[in-house]
Amino acid sequence: MIERLQWPSAFEASEFSLVGVSGGRDSVALLDLLVRSGLNNLIICHLNHQLRGNESDGDEDFVRQLANQYQLPIETSSMPVSQLAQQEKISLELAARHTRYQFFASCAAKHGANQLILGHHADDQAETILYNLMRGSAGLRGMSASSSTQQYGELTILRPMLDISREEIDQYIKKHHLPYREDSSNAEDFAVRNRIRNELMPLAKEIMGRDPRRSIIRAESMAVANQSWIDQHIQSLEIEDPQGRLFLPKLQQLDLPLLKRAIYLYLKKHQVAELNAKKIDECLQLVDPSQASKVNLSKGQFLRRKEKRLFIQASTD
Amino acid sequence: MIERLQWPSAFEASEFSLVGVSGGRDSVALLDLLVRSGLNNLIICHLNHQLRGNESDGDEDFVRQLANQYQLPIETSSMPVSQLAQQEKISLELAARHTRYQFFASCAAKHGANQLILGHHADDQAETILYNLMRGSAGLRGMSASSSTQQYGELTILRPMLDISREEIDQYIKKHHLPYREDSSNAEDFAVRNRIRNELMPLAKEIMGRDPRRSIIRAESMAVANQSWIDQHIQSLEIEDPQGRLFLPKLQQLDLPLLKRAIYLYLKKHQVAELNAKKIDECLQLVDPSQASKVNLSKGQFLRRKEKRLFIQASTD
Repeated sequence: MIERLQWPSAFEASEFSLVGVSGGRDSVALLDLLVRSGLNNLIICHLNHQLRGNESDGDEDFVRQLANQYQLPIETSSMPVSQLAQQEKISLELAARHTRYQFFASCAAKHGANQLILGHHADDQAETILYNLMRGSAGLRGMSASSSTQQYGELTILRPMLDISREEIDQYIKKHHLPYREDSSNAEDFAVRNRIRNELMPLAKEIMGRDPRRSIIRAESMAVANQSWIDQHIQSLEIEDPQGRLFLPKLQQLDLPLLKRAIYLYLKKHQVAELNAKKIDECLQLVDPSQASKVNLSKGQFLRRKEKRLFIQASTD
Repeated sequence: MIERLQWPSAFEASEFSLVGVSGGRDSVALLDLLVRSGLNNLIICHLNHQLRGNESDGDEDFVRQLANQYQLPIETSSMPVSQLAQQEKISLELAARHTRYQFFASCAAKHGANQLILGHHADDQAETILYNLMRGSAGLRGMSASSSTQQYGELTILRPMLDISREEIDQYIKKHHLPYREDSSNAEDFAVRNRIRNELMPLAKEIMGRDPRRSIIRAESMAVANQSWIDQHIQSLEIEDPQGRLFLPKLQQLDLPLLKRAIYLYLKKHQVAELNAKKIDECLQLVDPSQASKVNLSKGQFLRRKEKRLFIQASTD
C-alpha cells in the first residue's frame, strides 16, 4: 500500500512534518505507513478534544505510547471544545476545527515545520464530497491531496491516503497487527458526518446495488480538474490592471461561466466573506455600464465600477 | 407559475409540439400550463406501458378525456414493456425508454413535429443528478432543459418545468382543481429512482437539516456550464484536420483535462460504445509518439496513430 500513497510533486520528505494522530485506525495506519516509507522527521500531534471524558484521556495515553514506540517527538494539547463552542456560539464542528488548526499552527511554529500530514482516506473523501454537495458549498468538491492554508500561519496540508479506501486501511491494520483506539473519533466526525457515513452511504449502496463512492470521487476529480483549468485560463487572460483592479474591457470579453468565476476569484482573493451565487449575480451587473455602479458586499465593503475598472472599496471611502 | 417555464431561445411556439402525458400530476400540470401559455399546436402522446394492468388502462382513458377536454389531438400506443425487457434481456427501465422514444418518434413523423415537451421538474432533476453521480455516468449531470436526440429520428426534447419544484406543481394542481391519476407512474420511475425519491432524499434532508435539492441542482448547473464552455473552447482550437482526423501537434498542446475531453468528444462523435475513464486513459497514450500506435475500442474498431494523426479504423482495414 505504501506505493499508493499520493505525494504532491512539491513534497519534500527532508523537511520536518507534523502528523495528526487521533489514535484511531486511520491515523495509526498513516503513521505506520509514513515510518515504513522512510520518513523520519515526523512530529506526532495529538489534540485532546475532551469530548468523551476518560476515553479521550485514554486516546492521549495511547498516542504517547505510539510516539514512544516509533521514537518520535510528540506534541499534545487539551481543549474543552464543547465549552468553546458554547462560549463562542459556534457549532461543535467549527470549534473543533478552529482549535485543531490553532494547535497545529503552534506546533508548526515551535518546530519550524510547514507541513501537516493527515489521515483522510477515500471513504472520507466521498463523504465530504456528498456533504459539500448537499449543503451547497463549493459545488462538487472534496478535500485536496495537497492544500495550503494561511489562516493560522503558512501551512501545507497533505493527505497522502486520499486514494486509499477504508477497507484497504483495515487490511493494512490487520496485516501488520497494529493496535488502535476503537472509538477514537476523528474530531471532524460529528453527527452529520457520522450519519452520512453510517446511514446515507449504506442506503445509497443498497439502492444502487453497488458502492457509489468510486463514482462520486471520479466525478469530483473531473469537476475539480475542469475548474482548476478554467481558473488557470482566467489567470492567463490578465484581467487585472497594474493596480490590481478588474479591467472592464477584458471582463466584457469573457463568456458567462468565466465571467462569474473571475468575479468570484477576485472577491475571494480580497477575503470578501459571505459569497454565494446570488451575490455573484448581483456583482455581474456591474459589468454592464448601463447598470448601477456599486454593489454592497459584507462588512461595509462594496464592489465599485469606475473608469472602466471594478474594485473593492470600504463604505467610508 | 407560467412565467417561470423555461423556454430555450430556439423554441418556436408556432411549430407542432408533442407533449408526453402519463396522466400523473406532473404531466397534467404541464399540459394545463402549456394550454394557458397559449400553445395550441399540441399533440398529446400517451404510451400505455401495460405495467399495472387495469390501472394502466384507466390512465389511458383518463388521458383521452383530457385530450377531449382541451380539444387536442391524441396519439396512444400500448406496449407490454416487461415482456420486451424479458425478450431482449434488458432492464425494464431501458425497455421502457426504448419503447417510449420509438413511440414519440413515430408520432413526430406522423404529425411532422420535431419537438417533444416533457414534464420533468426540479425534484426529478435533483434525483437524476444524484442517480447519475452514484452510478458513475457523466459525472455531475442531470437532464437538459433542451436537448436533441438523433437516435430515433431528429427530435428536440424540451423540459420547461425543470426549474419548478414538485411542491409548486402540487400547489398549481390544487389552485386550478386539476384532476390527475394518483399512482400513474412516470415510466422512468422504476425501483431505483423511486427509492432515491422516497428513501434517499428524505434521509439526506433529515441528516442535513435542510432540503439538499437546490444545492445539488446549483452545483450541476455550474459543472455543466464549465464543461460546456470547455467543450466550446476545444471546438475553437480546430484540432481536427480537413479529413476529420485528430491532428497530433495540436493535441500535444492541450492541458491534460482538455486533452482527455478532446479524445472523449472525438470517440463519442464517432459513436464508439463502452467509453469510460480507463479507456480514455489508454487512448491518451497514443498522443505520445514513443508509445504504442493503436488502442482497441469496442466492436472491433481501434484508435490509431499514423502520420501525426489519430483516427478510428475498423480491425479489418
